[in-house]
Amino acid sequence: MNISLIGAGRVATHLATALHAQNIQIQHVFSRNIDHAQHLAQQVDAIALENISQLTQAELLLIAVSDAQIAVVAKQLAGMNYTGLVAHTSGSTHLQVLQMENLRSGVFYPLQSFSFDQPIDWENTPFFLEAVQPADLEQLDQLANTLSKRIYHYDSEQRLSLHLAAVFASNFSNYCYDIAEQILQQHQVDQHLIFPLILQTAQKMQTNSAQQNQTGPARRHDQNIIDLHLDMLKLHPEWQDIYALLSHAIKHRHAKA
Amino acid sequence: MNISLIGAGRVATHLATALHAQNIQIQHVFSRNIDHAQHLAQQVDAIALENISQLTQAELLLIAVSDAQIAVVAKQLAGMNYTGLVAHTSGSTHLQVLQMENLRSGVFYPLQSFSFDQPIDWENTPFFLEAVQPADLEQLDQLANTLSKRIYHYDSEQRLSLHLAAVFASNFSNYCYDIAEQILQQHQVDQHLIFPLILQTAQKMQTNSAQQNQTGPARRHDQNIIDLHLDMLKLHPEWQDIYALLSHAIKHRHAKA
Repeated sequence: MNISLIGAGRVATHLATALHAQNIQIQHVFSRNIDHAQHLAQQVDAIALENISQLTQAELLLIAVSDAQIAVVAKQLAGMNYTGLVAHTSGSTHLQVLQMENLRSGVFYPLQSFSFDQPIDWENTPFFLEAVQPADLEQLDQLANTLSKRIYHYDSEQRLSLHLAAVFASNFSNYCYDIAEQILQQHQVDQHLIFPLILQTAQKMQTNSAQQNQTGPARRHDQNIIDLHLDMLKLHPEWQDIYALLSHAIKHRHAKA
Repeated sequence: MNISLIGAGRVATHLATALHAQNIQIQHVFSRNIDHAQHLAQQVDAIALENISQLTQAELLLIAVSDAQIAVVAKQLAGMNYTGLVAHTSGSTHLQVLQMENLRSGVFYPLQSFSFDQPIDWENTPFFLEAVQPADLEQLDQLANTLSKRIYHYDSEQRLSLHLAAVFASNFSNYCYDIAEQILQQHQVDQHLIFPLILQTAQKMQTNSAQQNQTGPARRHDQNIIDLHLDMLKLHPEWQDIYALLSHAIKHRHAKA
């Protein structure tokens, strides 16, 4: 199978280098930023393109650009009469965005949080595949299988709900860590002290539901501590709002014993 | 050193049995519930008291009761003219609560999540010690040293900020997991799918700050996705409010590139 790529950001880079390591041929890399395209192309023995119209037909064209750009790229491909299989890699973009342009449409979405400097545990990364044609779905299956054994065929609505859930479970929990770190910093308290607690809270998900694992002053309806904490946050109205809203929601979720 | 204890709950039980195992003498155990006091006293060769006024002077009196009860107990001790060193074991109670009653005041706080049925890894449990008199702090130091080598001298404000940070880092992140699980349930999507992401997000804290690790639509200022998600949450106004508030805060924290 040979593949071309549109995009040279985090997702494109991690996917391309992982596929390259599996001896999958990467043919072309196009990015609006030619420097980025060249930087990635060098890593995976591919050719960097300056113009999207230079793309020749690959067996699969992966679109790994920002969500907002997917529709733009799809329109450009339609204008070029691109006839190969085109799959975007987004958790939060409907298959329809490609279908609307009458492309041979698919989705190749790895559920992962990609940073430039962190290695990816591909084997444990779930892939969500979708395609209009059964043969195209099979082709995406084959490719995903080279990286992971955890392959799912979910429709766009399910995939979008998964992405929404991931925003809560990963992005928002990370932002809660961020506030915690800032609070400790401001009081000259060693930030490493909360790491075991963070890890333990995450690990508990393996055995019980988050609802069962919930602890803390809001869970206990301990209004004295909640009020003390809100007072401690009075110089940070934004954190105070977050504390109040989340505590209210937790109290609502866990009726008083 | 001989010690007496007020309280017979989870913290009191774990502390008393651990100290007893280190050949520290436990003299008296008082609890409002005499059955609980007797149950604990038996385990540590101590005498259970029916009335707090029966307490004789120990070298150290540990108060391991609920946060709200600490002030009540302090008032009772003051009324008895108790003159020994009195330390509470709470992360979220100021030293002043004891000082106000003119007690020889201290804090002996182990940062741990105590369950009745889980053994405690004392060696890796950080202890936070505080006392008005240097000699008292030294005495608390000696005692904590029998259980752990991770001893911190933080003042009440620092200790309270650690507890506040833990609410964000553990309780609130867990509630974000809870919302995520509910979203997946509603769309018949396998809930196990987000566990690797949750674990990885937590593990990343070991190498980078949460600020550096932040990803997601709000981090990218991707308003299309944010609006799509808010629309998907329209039947859950509480989750919608949380999504909007946290996304706004993340955008604010990470200025547009």
